[in-house]
Amino acid sequence: MRILVTGAAGMIGRKLVARLFRDGALGGRKITALDLHDVVPMEQLSDPGIHVAIHVGDLAEPGQAAALMRDRPDIVFHLAGVVSGEAEQNFALGYRANLDGARLLFHAIHEAGHCPRVVFSSSIAVFGGPFPDIIPDDFHTVPLTSYGAQKVMTEALLVDYTRRGFLDGVGLRLPSVCVRPGKPNKAASGFFSNIIREPLVGREAVLPVGRGVVQTHASPRSVVGFLIHAASLDGAAIGPRRNLNMPGVAVSIGEQIEALERVAGKETAALVREEHDDAIWAMVQHWPTRFAASRARELGFTAEDSFDDIIRVHIGDELSG
Amino acid sequence: MRILVTGAAGMIGRKLVARLFRDGALGGRKITALDLHDVVPMEQLSDPGIHVAIHVGDLAEPGQAAALMRDRPDIVFHLAGVVSGEAEQNFALGYRANLDGARLLFHAIHEAGHCPRVVFSSSIAVFGGPFPDIIPDDFHTVPLTSYGAQKVMTEALLVDYTRRGFLDGVGLRLPSVCVRPGKPNKAASGFFSNIIREPLVGREAVLPVGRGVVQTHASPRSVVGFLIHAASLDGAAIGPRRNLNMPGVAVSIGEQIEALERVAGKETAALVREEHDDAIWAMVQHWPTRFAASRARELGFTAEDSFDDIIRVHIGDELSG
Repeated sequence: MRILVTGAAGMIGRKLVARLFRDGALGGRKITALDLHDVVPMEQLSDPGIHVAIHVGDLAEPGQAAALMRDRPDIVFHLAGVVSGEAEQNFALGYRANLDGARLLFHAIHEAGHCPRVVFSSSIAVFGGPFPDIIPDDFHTVPLTSYGAQKVMTEALLVDYTRRGFLDGVGLRLPSVCVRPGKPNKAASGFFSNIIREPLVGREAVLPVGRGVVQTHASPRSVVGFLIHAASLDGAAIGPRRNLNMPGVAVSIGEQIEALERVAGKETAALVREEHDDAIWAMVQHWPTRFAASRARELGFTAEDSFDDIIRVHIGDELSG
Repeated sequence: MRILVTGAAGMIGRKLVARLFRDGALGGRKITALDLHDVVPMEQLSDPGIHVAIHVGDLAEPGQAAALMRDRPDIVFHLAGVVSGEAEQNFALGYRANLDGARLLFHAIHEAGHCPRVVFSSSIAVFGGPFPDIIPDDFHTVPLTSYGAQKVMTEALLVDYTRRGFLDGVGLRLPSVCVRPGKPNKAASGFFSNIIREPLVGREAVLPVGRGVVQTHASPRSVVGFLIHAASLDGAAIGPRRNLNMPGVAVSIGEQIEALERVAGKETAALVREEHDDAIWAMVQHWPTRFAASRARELGFTAEDSFDDIIRVHIGDELSG
């Protein structure tokens, strides 16, 4: 089977590609070709059993998406887009990358006419507060960011293209991805990962909000698991409501730090330094906290059971155990 | 004040314009100019106190919306678009008229830079079944038509443009508009009006579904009232959730016919002839029935109290009493 990954150079994209190489198959079918697309160049990957083609370009440019569909991939993972901070800073770029890019891709898929499975990485940013204690699957989507609005719009397209039989879509509303590897970044949500990743390698990390803040997390490994699972789900079992709230571990920051202490010791956990940041707090207080994610669990999506496990996954995958 | 109405030649557009002429003012401010836009030519309307400009064109054509914003209207009623049957039949046209038209209009409003109130006619078609008995205000929007998808997308744009301060939007999810004046049309929902309008002038009407089907209705007069009320609502009182489920009268078809009998007599009501249509039933069974519409009522939106009143409004407005 042939698989296309857009946004393949991103953090989740790279981990997904590594997993596809490792598995060599998806849903019981051998992977023969991988098309990897991104706006930034990728390292040349190779695998003895898989034909890999690297494509560098902008999906919002006319013709780009059509070129990607020439070999009619069986599965499309659409991960491309700009992140929420960038979409908020640059209004036009956000709509271009996140909405127009998806729309042109879906249009090209429709034109190709073979109705592949399309797995789209949406986000819990489709939701805006105030929230009930536990957000049910049928809660309305009124985002408080442009990024969230672009995800809502793409979700609606995905549902409509699926209903029409132009593609066979599944949208995954990803929770906070934790622990994010790499350097601390300036994303407002970065501290959820920073306070684990940095202490684990002996560095201080700043906590800009109170320890009572609750957020739902899943490891990068689980997120890749969601994508793979979605790729081979039976569409009829999903029904017409194609955008699913993914499961995760809902914990307070205090509980995150307690888990860090259990897994890595008191001295490691002591490297978290509190330094309040009003601007970050202003955003964080509107973020969703807990999700029922009932349909996703029924459909077999699984995440970690505890934040201790999330830390162990990070140690296993990023710190060589 | 200057007011722009898009879709001004449509049924609701014409009634809104007539009301604006009659009132001569909106929210306590005198109306001095009216820009009326539509894809089809309108009769030349005139009013001694109001400067009326007729614009014929396609909002999805580049430059159209910018031209409409040259005189910086204080209020924009965005009613333009193709109806659900047309959007379902012609996929590309639906997205062009309903999504791209709105997006270009909102973009032009943003460019004009004066943040007018924008009242957008959305629809309960944003919802798709299965439904709870009474649809709450925070129910998710997963439409089962392309028209509904286009409304969901435009609603998301409206919220985001409002949050950014580019415009000051209010979206109204209109219930079934009943009694629709004019000739019977082929819209799947047409029978809800046909079974009242036709018997009232002594003609037979076909009822293609069972009498137990429940739907929420508001008269054209109430819908115009929603639009006018939305135009002068305090944005701060609405908050960030700008798309509101409008109130209406939830009745079964049996109750509609009983009301017809009370208002116009047994012989009139006997002109409804049952003739089952599987294709219409297939659609109708997925339509939403009852809405809480709590927020809209709190914000002062009002509709009729009974279906008897809806019939009386039709007799008063369309049959000269």
